[in-house]
Amino acid sequence: MTTKKIGTQTAALANPPTIAGHANVVGKKEGDGPLANSFDFISQDDTFGQASWEKAESSMQKQALSLALDKAGRSAGNLDWLFAGDLLNQCISSSYAARGQAIPFFGLYGACSTMGEGLALAAMTLDGGFGEWAGVCASSHFCSAERQYRTPLEYGSQRTPTAQWTATAAGAVVVTNAVRPGPRVARVTVGMVKDKGIKDANNMGAAMAPAAYETLKTHFEDTGLAPDYYDLIVTGDLGSLGHEIVTDLFDRDGVKLANYNDCGLILFDREEQDVHAGASGCGCSASVLCGYLLPGLLSGRWSRILFCPTGALHSPTATMQGESIPGICHALALEGGK
Amino acid sequence: MTTKKIGTQTAALANPPTIAGHANVVGKKEGDGPLANSFDFISQDDTFGQASWEKAESSMQKQALSLALDKAGRSAGNLDWLFAGDLLNQCISSSYAARGQAIPFFGLYGACSTMGEGLALAAMTLDGGFGEWAGVCASSHFCSAERQYRTPLEYGSQRTPTAQWTATAAGAVVVTNAVRPGPRVARVTVGMVKDKGIKDANNMGAAMAPAAYETLKTHFEDTGLAPDYYDLIVTGDLGSLGHEIVTDLFDRDGVKLANYNDCGLILFDREEQDVHAGASGCGCSASVLCGYLLPGLLSGRWSRILFCPTGALHSPTATMQGESIPGICHALALEGGK
Repeated sequence: MTTKKIGTQTAALANPPTIAGHANVVGKKEGDGPLANSFDFISQDDTFGQASWEKAESSMQKQALSLALDKAGRSAGNLDWLFAGDLLNQCISSSYAARGQAIPFFGLYGACSTMGEGLALAAMTLDGGFGEWAGVCASSHFCSAERQYRTPLEYGSQRTPTAQWTATAAGAVVVTNAVRPGPRVARVTVGMVKDKGIKDANNMGAAMAPAAYETLKTHFEDTGLAPDYYDLIVTGDLGSLGHEIVTDLFDRDGVKLANYNDCGLILFDREEQDVHAGASGCGCSASVLCGYLLPGLLSGRWSRILFCPTGALHSPTATMQGESIPGICHALALEGGK
Repeated sequence: MTTKKIGTQTAALANPPTIAGHANVVGKKEGDGPLANSFDFISQDDTFGQASWEKAESSMQKQALSLALDKAGRSAGNLDWLFAGDLLNQCISSSYAARGQAIPFFGLYGACSTMGEGLALAAMTLDGGFGEWAGVCASSHFCSAERQYRTPLEYGSQRTPTAQWTATAAGAVVVTNAVRPGPRVARVTVGMVKDKGIKDANNMGAAMAPAAYETLKTHFEDTGLAPDYYDLIVTGDLGSLGHEIVTDLFDRDGVKLANYNDCGLILFDREEQDVHAGASGCGCSASVLCGYLLPGLLSGRWSRILFCPTGALHSPTATMQGESIPGICHALALEGGK
């Protein structure tokens, strides 16, 4: 059988599926940041009218999918599959958002890499000949994440300089193999779980950077493409320290990443918004994808982007048991759109 | 573009991938049950030599994959993709089991339906032309699940009659589109998230039964096959009450499911082993698949099985916030093998 897998980790889509719709729903702080103009909905109230932060996050995810479907001119009932995930225990934001929507559902756990994992699976499923339309959702909420991973907000804990700020954001994309205008998912390099022994749960950037470096390196090897083939390479949420580590690791290989940025450095204004090392959370890469990268492809600002969301696959329980933090990164080549 | 999707929720594999290897690693109680002879490894010590229950579960999953690969005559480095999930917060059993294994990794969260979700995605990915070999793992551990979902074992809490016993079990299968002997994944009906308002976290069977009923009904509609096309239909882990509800719902439609059983009723001897309504956990359907269904297909006892793992997509947080429990069920038609 012929394979559309190239090299060790990369899927080359035969008929690259199109991202026909995308949307972001974010909180107030995100709406005060540099991407404000491209968000579809900014809530001034981070409860989103719900009785708990968890329900707020679920409601954001549902709304993001609905807005993305609107832009694609489809209804939820037209979707063949839905791929979704989040950071909460048992991924309740996603499951409760999918409840009552008549869409065959695949729940994912890829921590902050979820938008990449979902987009990879959606593209591969459609390119494999299964259906025509798929949705991908990912979300995080600062308040639900803080109390689950660290301490309840009410404690007023101090944050370390390497800490990142979990985005209150949900992003959704609608992918199709029908003929539609829009950016296409051309290649997907699926990450392996990497762990270099970082144990500081307040330093996610350092924990995930090795996974990002490995996936990027493999992507270039598998595809034979050089980094400058892409107008923009975006990892993350690695934040400032993780971004520096990836840059440094490539430097040591004699490779200059001139066109390299990170979702954790794009979502907020680090000078003004006091987010320390940058943004994080499933909603970070999802909202930067939908609020910055896809609009840039559609406007013609860029024509080829390598989007590489990263995830830290630990839990508070694992950390308390003295475990180090494994990371993962998936790389997706997004091309065209104007 | 032609589609291999039939009806609303079903993928019809063009070249049904083969399950070329499978293995089970279980705890002492499971090893005392009726499937004892078909398990690959039964530990007399549920710690599996690890310092915590969570690490024990991760170690079981790693061992199950290794044994399944042995049977398929492959090494981990030969796998194109790994699909894995479990019940623990942030799915740490799976991520830590995958750490250090050089396999592109997709983390899943489908609660106790995970083996079905993973097998569906593995089959669709390979049938779509992406690579030749995929692994699927799922696990649960009685002790890690009890302290996370309910109370630490040391409290000695009473169990309700509708409670099920989370299996200490990890199952792994190796799937391929290369020419190999073994049972094949012919059709996959992907479930939707269903919620009929059950709020009792000690009554998972009732919460998941509607999802099982809906997925089964859709499978028969999408494929045009009658229930008696299959030698055996196996849901679950629904346990005794859930099994009764599904039977009753079909009865009301005038459909007799004569060949219908449930993984939650197969793993343990309910008369002897004091498990109340039956077994549960990702490891339940995974170990019944690998310890009962696949051996039965390979021996020629059955030639067509509809394997329908179910999952309850709630969390303790959702339950404490007064939410009802959404369920999901995926149906996989497994055929041939002798």
